[in-house]
Amino acid sequence: MDRNAPVGVFDSGVGGLTVAREIMRQMPDEKIIYFGDTARLPYGSKSQDTVLRYSRQIIRFLLTKEVKAIVIACNTASAYALETVERELDIPIIGVIRAGARTAVNSTRNGKIGVIGTEGTISSGIYTDVMQQMRPDIDVTVKSCPLFVPLVEEGLLHDSVTDEIASRYLSVLKGRFIDTLVLGCTHYPLLRSTLGRIMGDDVTLVNPAYETALELKALLSGKNLTCDNGKTGNEEKYQFYVSDLAEKFTAFATSILPNEVKETRKIHVEEY
Amino acid sequence: MDRNAPVGVFDSGVGGLTVAREIMRQMPDEKIIYFGDTARLPYGSKSQDTVLRYSRQIIRFLLTKEVKAIVIACNTASAYALETVERELDIPIIGVIRAGARTAVNSTRNGKIGVIGTEGTISSGIYTDVMQQMRPDIDVTVKSCPLFVPLVEEGLLHDSVTDEIASRYLSVLKGRFIDTLVLGCTHYPLLRSTLGRIMGDDVTLVNPAYETALELKALLSGKNLTCDNGKTGNEEKYQFYVSDLAEKFTAFATSILPNEVKETRKIHVEEY
Repeated sequence: MDRNAPVGVFDSGVGGLTVAREIMRQMPDEKIIYFGDTARLPYGSKSQDTVLRYSRQIIRFLLTKEVKAIVIACNTASAYALETVERELDIPIIGVIRAGARTAVNSTRNGKIGVIGTEGTISSGIYTDVMQQMRPDIDVTVKSCPLFVPLVEEGLLHDSVTDEIASRYLSVLKGRFIDTLVLGCTHYPLLRSTLGRIMGDDVTLVNPAYETALELKALLSGKNLTCDNGKTGNEEKYQFYVSDLAEKFTAFATSILPNEVKETRKIHVEEY
Repeated sequence: MDRNAPVGVFDSGVGGLTVAREIMRQMPDEKIIYFGDTARLPYGSKSQDTVLRYSRQIIRFLLTKEVKAIVIACNTASAYALETVERELDIPIIGVIRAGARTAVNSTRNGKIGVIGTEGTISSGIYTDVMQQMRPDIDVTVKSCPLFVPLVEEGLLHDSVTDEIASRYLSVLKGRFIDTLVLGCTHYPLLRSTLGRIMGDDVTLVNPAYETALELKALLSGKNLTCDNGKTGNEEKYQFYVSDLAEKFTAFATSILPNEVKETRKIHVEEY
C-alpha cells in the first residue's frame, strides 16, 4: 500500500465536505478524492438495501483511484453500509457515526444523549446501539428531522420558519433533559446557532465531522499510512467527483472549503 | 399494436398516482403499469442530462411490459425528456405539461398566468414556452417552490409553517395579478386548499393531472387504441413497480387510489 496515495471520502452530496474540510485542516499533506452522489441524493429516505448498493458502487469507483483508505462522510451510509463493506474491503474504511458517538458518550454528564438525523439514520437505530455498546447505561433519545436538509438547501439558516420547525422537532429532546446532542447529519452543523439557542447553553452539541478526521488521523498513523510527501506533481491535491450538477457543486464546495475548487468531474457512478 | 395492452405511467415517485387516478376514473377499462422511481427521487433538483437518462431507463423497462402508450406523469421529466424520447419511440408518449398549459391558456381572462413547480421544471422555462406558442401575448410568471414537496411528504398539508412558506413563494405571483395558477408539480394539488386561500377566489387553480387523462383518452381514441376488453385474466389490472421502498409505496398508493393496491414490485431500473 502506498502511504502517499489519496484518501477517498464520499457522501450523498455536499454535506460530507464538512468532513473533508476537517481532514484538510488536521492533515494538510493528505490528498483527497471526494465523491458526492448528487444524482441520487438524498440517502436519508432510502432503504438499507439501496443505500448499500449505492455505497458499493461508489467504493468501486474510489478503488479505481487507488485510495489507501475510505471515509464514509454520510451518516445514513455509515448506518446502513459500513458494517457490510468493511468486511469486503482490503483497505481501512471508517464512518462518521462511531467518532460522533464516542465524543457524545465522553461528554455527557447526566448520561442523557439526544441524536437528530435523517429518517434512514434514525430508523436504523445505530447511534443508540453504538453508544450503548460503549456505555450500557446511557439513555438515548432520537428524533428524525426530515425538513432540516431541504431548509438548509433553501438557504433558510436563520429564519423564523426554521426556528419553528426546529422547536417542534427538538421539543421531545428538551422534555427528556438531555445534556448532549449529536448532530447526526452532515447538513445540521449549518443550523448550529438555531439548534444551540433552542437547546440552551447547558446542552453540548457534537459535530461528528471533527471527530471523524481525528479518528482517520489515528488510523493512518497506526497503519503507517500517513502521507510523508504532500507533493502531487501535475495532479490536483483535492479532486472532486459527482454524479450530477458539477458546476453547482463546485460553487458550493468553494464557498465552504479553505481553497477554491477549480473543477468537479461528473461520472456515471451506476456503471461501477 | 394491441389495443388491449396496458398504458405505461411513470413519475419520480408517488406524485404521478394523481395522474393514474384520473386515468382510472376517465378510462376504467384501461390497464396500467405504473413505475415510481423512489430510489432516485426527487427529479426536480437534477440536471436535464440525468433526468433524460433516468427517463430512458424507465421507458425501456415499460417497453418490456409491452405498453401501447406512455404517460410521463412528472413535470420535471416532461420538461426535460419528452421532446427527445418521443422522437426515439414507436408508440405514443405524452407528458403532463402540454395539457396543463392548454387549460391555463383557455381559462385565463386577463392573460396573466402563474406557474409553480420544482427548480427543474421552472428553470427549464417549458411552461412559458409552451403557453406562448399557444398564445404569444400571454404573460407568464413562474416561481419554483422547493420546500413544497418535503412539506407534503412530512404531512404538513394544513399547517402554519406551510401557510408561511406558501405566502412567501406566492407573493411574487399575487403582485403580478395573475388570474390562473398552474400547479406544475404532481404533489401540489395536495396543498390546493392552502394555495387557493392565499391566492383568493378570483384565481383559477389548474391541476394538469385531470387534463392529461383527457388528452390520453383523445389520443388513444384517435389511434384506435382504446381498450375494448377490460378483462385481465390472471394478471392484476393495475400493476405497480418502484425502484425502492415498495411497502411504503403500497400504503401511500392505497390511500389515494380508489381500490386497494395489493402489491408493489421493486426492480433495479438502472439495469434497463
